[in-house]
Amino acid sequence: MKNVNVGIIGFGRIGKIHFDHLTKIPGTKVTKVADPYFDDEAFAAQFETDFIKDGAEIIADESIDAVYICCPTDQHIYWIKEAAQAGKHIFCEKPISDSDEETLAAFDIVKESGVKFQLGVNRRFDRNFSGIREYIEEGRIGQPQLLAINSYDPEAPPLSYVEVSGGLFFDMMIHDFDMARYIMGSEVTEVFAVGEALINEDIKQYGDVDTAIVTLKFANGAIGTITNSRQAVYGYDQRLEVLGSEGGVEAKNELNNQIIVSDREGSHHSNPQHFFLERYAAAYAEEDREFIEAIQNDTDTPVAFEDGIMAQRLAFAAQESYQTGKPVQVQLM
Amino acid sequence: MKNVNVGIIGFGRIGKIHFDHLTKIPGTKVTKVADPYFDDEAFAAQFETDFIKDGAEIIADESIDAVYICCPTDQHIYWIKEAAQAGKHIFCEKPISDSDEETLAAFDIVKESGVKFQLGVNRRFDRNFSGIREYIEEGRIGQPQLLAINSYDPEAPPLSYVEVSGGLFFDMMIHDFDMARYIMGSEVTEVFAVGEALINEDIKQYGDVDTAIVTLKFANGAIGTITNSRQAVYGYDQRLEVLGSEGGVEAKNELNNQIIVSDREGSHHSNPQHFFLERYAAAYAEEDREFIEAIQNDTDTPVAFEDGIMAQRLAFAAQESYQTGKPVQVQLM
Amino acid sequence: MKNVNVGIIGFGRIGKIHFDHLTKIPGTKVTKVADPYFDDEAFAAQFETDFIKDGAEIIADESIDAVYICCPTDQHIYWIKEAAQAGKHIFCEKPISDSDEETLAAFDIVKESGVKFQLGVNRRFDRNFSGIREYIEEGRIGQPQLLAINSYDPEAPPLSYVEVSGGLFFDMMIHDFDMARYIMGSEVTEVFAVGEALINEDIKQYGDVDTAIVTLKFANGAIGTITNSRQAVYGYDQRLEVLGSEGGVEAKNELNNQIIVSDREGSHHSNPQHFFLERYAAAYAEEDREFIEAIQNDTDTPVAFEDGIMAQRLAFAAQESYQTGKPVQVQLM
Amino acid sequence: MKNVNVGIIGFGRIGKIHFDHLTKIPGTKVTKVADPYFDDEAFAAQFETDFIKDGAEIIADESIDAVYICCPTDQHIYWIKEAAQAGKHIFCEKPISDSDEETLAAFDIVKESGVKFQLGVNRRFDRNFSGIREYIEEGRIGQPQLLAINSYDPEAPPLSYVEVSGGLFFDMMIHDFDMARYIMGSEVTEVFAVGEALINEDIKQYGDVDTAIVTLKFANGAIGTITNSRQAVYGYDQRLEVLGSEGGVEAKNELNNQIIVSDREGSHHSNPQHFFLERYAAAYAEEDREFIEAIQNDTDTPVAFEDGIMAQRLAFAAQESYQTGKPVQVQLM
Repeated sequence: MKNVNVGIIGFGRIGKIHFDHLTKIPGTKVTKVADPYFDDEAFAAQFETDFIKDGAEIIADESIDAVYICCPTDQHIYWIKEAAQAGKHIFCEKPISDSDEETLAAFDIVKESGVKFQLGVNRRFDRNFSGIREYIEEGRIGQPQLLAINSYDPEAPPLSYVEVSGGLFFDMMIHDFDMARYIMGSEVTEVFAVGEALINEDIKQYGDVDTAIVTLKFANGAIGTITNSRQAVYGYDQRLEVLGSEGGVEAKNELNNQIIVSDREGSHHSNPQHFFLERYAAAYAEEDREFIEAIQNDTDTPVAFEDGIMAQRLAFAAQESYQTGKPVQVQLM
Repeated sequence: MKNVNVGIIGFGRIGKIHFDHLTKIPGTKVTKVADPYFDDEAFAAQFETDFIKDGAEIIADESIDAVYICCPTDQHIYWIKEAAQAGKHIFCEKPISDSDEETLAAFDIVKESGVKFQLGVNRRFDRNFSGIREYIEEGRIGQPQLLAINSYDPEAPPLSYVEVSGGLFFDMMIHDFDMARYIMGSEVTEVFAVGEALINEDIKQYGDVDTAIVTLKFANGAIGTITNSRQAVYGYDQRLEVLGSEGGVEAKNELNNQIIVSDREGSHHSNPQHFFLERYAAAYAEEDREFIEAIQNDTDTPVAFEDGIMAQRLAFAAQESYQTGKPVQVQLM
Repeated sequence: MKNVNVGIIGFGRIGKIHFDHLTKIPGTKVTKVADPYFDDEAFAAQFETDFIKDGAEIIADESIDAVYICCPTDQHIYWIKEAAQAGKHIFCEKPISDSDEETLAAFDIVKESGVKFQLGVNRRFDRNFSGIREYIEEGRIGQPQLLAINSYDPEAPPLSYVEVSGGLFFDMMIHDFDMARYIMGSEVTEVFAVGEALINEDIKQYGDVDTAIVTLKFANGAIGTITNSRQAVYGYDQRLEVLGSEGGVEAKNELNNQIIVSDREGSHHSNPQHFFLERYAAAYAEEDREFIEAIQNDTDTPVAFEDGIMAQRLAFAAQESYQTGKPVQVQLM
Repeated sequence: MKNVNVGIIGFGRIGKIHFDHLTKIPGTKVTKVADPYFDDEAFAAQFETDFIKDGAEIIADESIDAVYICCPTDQHIYWIKEAAQAGKHIFCEKPISDSDEETLAAFDIVKESGVKFQLGVNRRFDRNFSGIREYIEEGRIGQPQLLAINSYDPEAPPLSYVEVSGGLFFDMMIHDFDMARYIMGSEVTEVFAVGEALINEDIKQYGDVDTAIVTLKFANGAIGTITNSRQAVYGYDQRLEVLGSEGGVEAKNELNNQIIVSDREGSHHSNPQHFFLERYAAAYAEEDREFIEAIQNDTDTPVAFEDGIMAQRLAFAAQESYQTGKPVQVQLM
């Protein structure tokens, strides 16, 4: 088994998640982590990893096989190009960028370089969603006809985050657009979006919404919806269901525990796991494992560059539909 | 307690359901049933009810207080007018008619006559849906923000039925349009519809679909979806959920039984109750009870004529949206 | 189809339930009801039934085919003998009596008379329990190995009732003893009982308990438990599960509705249906239907006299085990 | 925070679980592992730990603070005494021994030495069972009255294991005896056991059973049952419920996933997590975390030596009850 040396560029919340998982994968070493703002020396002292400021040192390090790009979105394209040209395999957090043109240009460079690329769409690696995809591929529910994705956050982000987030469709629903393509195994050809500011009216000043529904038409004839809310007070609600010609399948929430208390008011179950760190902990570990495995076995990564391009196009199309009040056709690759 | 004498016009499947429930309500007698095609003398012999051919005899019978209109839709308007002018209270199956103009004209006559009118939207009387409305009215989930109604039949009707049905939006989804207004306590102002023929392509010759999603905008700012399928092979799927600012509420299916079998393949629950006769048996009884009670106590009926008008307008608007591929504004009263 | 005329002896809560169901069975008429204490003339006026004081008039009425014995337990034996000798089919509420000797004597008379006899063990006709028995008979879970019955009332009865009830094992658990034999299709050969007064200590003065567990050994090698409580504050808890060599099966409670509310505290379901009148409404109707059907088709009734004898013997054995603190062998027939 | 050096004696399946968890606890190092049969050099090469043959080297190593005793049961007492006399804190897998006398002697030595001792009863650290204990301690269900523990393995062990296991009550149900005391917060004073060989008759030659029910009387008046089966074909069934004066609480199984598939046969959920390694993975991690924390903070460990003594006495009492067919009093400390 080939040993894999990894460098991580960007060491915020997501960078740390990958660091934690990568250190547990046999034959894998995170040798360098670059983040200009990271200065927790006590943390760094626990590991043999080199904590540096500038990602360029990672690109320049010939012993490094793969780069995790976990920095802010506006730097993704830069590091993708750098890493590809240096012949390093790339794991990039979503979204690739907020420009279809720049994303396509980076895609060309990655293709030419021949390095492996994996997009960080962690939810594909959740046992429930990947299980549903398997069921559908095996024909367990026949031909898929209707998809419904419900994806609600437990609490709305601060306005300071909203301002730079790119908006609900690009920042939040992009996960669900990817999921829709993944589950149905078919491209979305048209979207229609409605959205409102129902949780906090102040969000309107940024042209954003906190509650939205997007209707999807798929190339294979199926139709579906994605429903997002920035705040379900009972917790992180992540459900999905598909109706097919031979049955239906749904993923229920993962709960904090399996306890039921019964009293005069009824019977009471726990809330869903609080947020994405808890709910998708195992999925993050799995996406890292599969990326390293693809490098070690020289096989395709489970998520392609094209998947990133299409998720972004769907987010832009939904945004346009919301703004114009009309259905929007999606440009396929 | 005032005794109530009832006449039933039209004695098909639905007429018989009402007959059965009305005979069990104390102080209520079905004295005449009119249907030109009914000829089951053995059945008729069991009851003291007069089985006749012509509804005109019911209208002419001064001892009859209330009329149930259960005949084909194209005769509803005629009998509504006749009954109203004869001063008889009216229970009319949905839809009132397939013409907004004719429905409004009948509405004027009913208003002038002062008789009570109740529309047969049985699902409002289901313990789950009425319970959810109560929760929402009590503020249990705060301000409603998102509605999702899933309503799938266990099997598609024959093409002969489809041909004269008025189409999925008018024949099937009309129930869900009424439910949407009932649950949210707010008018729908805009709809956008997508639909496909995924179960049986032959339905296309009638310009109809068997699978559809309609996005709803409500006057109070909430948004929602109605999803219909003519066929969920696992049975009659009737679910509904609402997300509000302080919580969420959902109605799960009623199952055939509460048995769970566990084996090497997993754990297995029963299918939903087969179809509307089983699922809504108690709801039909309840709507009849409340109609008779409104007559006996001289109070308002629980479903108004206006509810019928609006459900029809929503069905027409959805149909138009499906045909034009654009969102359609709904004309309010 | 033979018309069946029924007389009811005893018109308390249970007598009325049967009256209500019998009047809805086609070809069945309750022609006489006898109860010395019944005097609700307004109720009686609604029906063509003759409301009388003395059950002897029912026995003497040659037009009556079947007698429902719904009077206090200490009069059961008397009316069973009277009815049998008059050649009338018998439906008798449980228990038959509190004396094994008297019950056996009545059994002899019933056998000789050749009339049909059905014991009123309504729970056997519940869709969940009868469904489980069917699954087991079909071999769905292989060879049954372990049985657990949980049966809790929503509130303890008044002490005045406890005093004359015969005690928890005889008054309450007798239903579960019958269920154990019904589900497992095998006789119970040994019982061991523990019991306590945990809800109301005052019950001890009657030598009674309000909380009890009985361990069962079955003739086929299986083992099991019955657990009773006079009070589960969340409602009437009626569950049952069986583990077999090829799987397990369980009956969950029937709930008041299928609504789930989710809020910051978790997700909340409704309580079980309140008490036996609600929970077993359909089961009462079904046991009456099957009794009448057995008369009309001259077939065996679904519950035999012997079932009543064995349920009583199990209750006595459990009572003895509780009092002696030792396991007790059960005398088989 | 004090650094803790750990030595592990015995490196079978359980020793490896602890090794894996301990290496992830900050400030903790497994410096020596002793097992005469361990020879996986590739595995050993991954870690800085010293893999040796003889536990005596661990006892002699003054830099080691704590010892994990994970060797076969018949060596537990020896190493407990050695470790205690060397002043090392002790984590010992259950059961301590199969002799009450020897266990008490070891207890005296541990008490005198003043070292910390924790028994490896992992299930106490499961989120569901510890959550239920918290609910009960908080008074959420009032006074506990009835306990039911269901604990079934997914498949029976080979006869070679059964022969040396000590029997179902000592090998398998001992976990549930500890759980019963933990959940109810009260001692068990009397047990009554029934058991059968229903899965594999060959087990009888060892005087053992594969299916058993034990009735429990608690010092606080509550009563309960433990039901064990060596084989539930649908998987590792680990449930528990308590009825109290103000409500009930139950722990459902943890499933492999939250997917529900619905088809013509019904709706289908996944099996429970396969066996104890999957189901209790987090619980093992938690018990190790709390043991190390107790050392670091010099506080009491969460499970006392006495808990081990009492679980063993309950197992012996159940065994005796099964053999004599009579209830057995339990000797309290």
